[in-house]
Amino acid sequence: VTDWTIHGEQALYDSPWVRLGLADVETPSGTRHSYHLVRMPVAGAGTVIVDEASQILLIHRYRFITGTWGWELPAGRVDPGETPDSAAAREATEETGWKPTALQHLVSLHTSPGLTDQTSHVFLSRNAIYQGPPADPDEASDVHWTKPADVRRLLHLGEIHDSFTMCGLLWYLSFGDSTDC
Amino acid sequence: VTDWTIHGEQALYDSPWVRLGLADVETPSGTRHSYHLVRMPVAGAGTVIVDEASQILLIHRYRFITGTWGWELPAGRVDPGETPDSAAAREATEETGWKPTALQHLVSLHTSPGLTDQTSHVFLSRNAIYQGPPADPDEASDVHWTKPADVRRLLHLGEIHDSFTMCGLLWYLSFGDSTDC
Repeated sequence: VTDWTIHGEQALYDSPWVRLGLADVETPSGTRHSYHLVRMPVAGAGTVIVDEASQILLIHRYRFITGTWGWELPAGRVDPGETPDSAAAREATEETGWKPTALQHLVSLHTSPGLTDQTSHVFLSRNAIYQGPPADPDEASDVHWTKPADVRRLLHLGEIHDSFTMCGLLWYLSFGDSTDC
Repeated sequence: VTDWTIHGEQALYDSPWVRLGLADVETPSGTRHSYHLVRMPVAGAGTVIVDEASQILLIHRYRFITGTWGWELPAGRVDPGETPDSAAAREATEETGWKPTALQHLVSLHTSPGLTDQTSHVFLSRNAIYQGPPADPDEASDVHWTKPADVRRLLHLGEIHDSFTMCGLLWYLSFGDSTDC
């Protein structure tokens, strides 16, 4: 139940990758205004991959939109017909050469719900199988098994700054694979 | 240093609130392709407000873009001429009626760097002063001082799902206000 009324939504731009909309919104106080929003037709999915020595697999990645380098979890888009966990496993294999198996769902999140409906899913795998060098040379310049203490250090140094990776790693470091509180 | 070349960026839509662009990108492998991106002219800022009993101030908020309710940190846009910490304090005061003081920077993040350059800053305050009922009735339907154990419970229940809030809370619960590892 909500007191928000959406009178309509106009497409300012539409494509298979992204849609920019302008919504006509009436808030609980009765104010009516226009609001820009970004709709993403597909979700994202990524994996916290942990080895027997408790190290986590990270990739060093350039993001041209922000113009920044950062350490990230392997992740990408869920293709049509794919489930989020199979997308997460495919992306990890392409980007790192390691194929995660026995994926468990850790957490799902909205990346920026005041701007976009984009949804991302984080999985955990404790069993990855090495397949060979990464198939996708554009995604990662470095693939590194990282000790938890070094993950914490990278977080404090600001070298992990994308919210998906930060949520996934902080969740895993805080809760492990427990689904209880 | 990067092997990514951006040959240009065309504006598909532009406004003071959001810009949709199409970039002409050449990746390290030499592939050239078009890439949609969203540029946000202003940053976001929010605050983890903690009281003497270690409770954290959360607001229950409806997000019409995702059509979901969730518990969130008070947060909003940094206005022109404003610093991120003063924006975070102003937003908290408007949304909760509590004015945080002595803000410390906790962490900054990119909400979704494969889509947008949107940047958000999380602050911590252990000293908030009650100013009266929230001035902005549209932001929060409920304002609640929440015990850390209940924050963890809300995370596991999926009632905290925006990545900004998740990062801020997990960071604070993991590291407190330590700037060291």
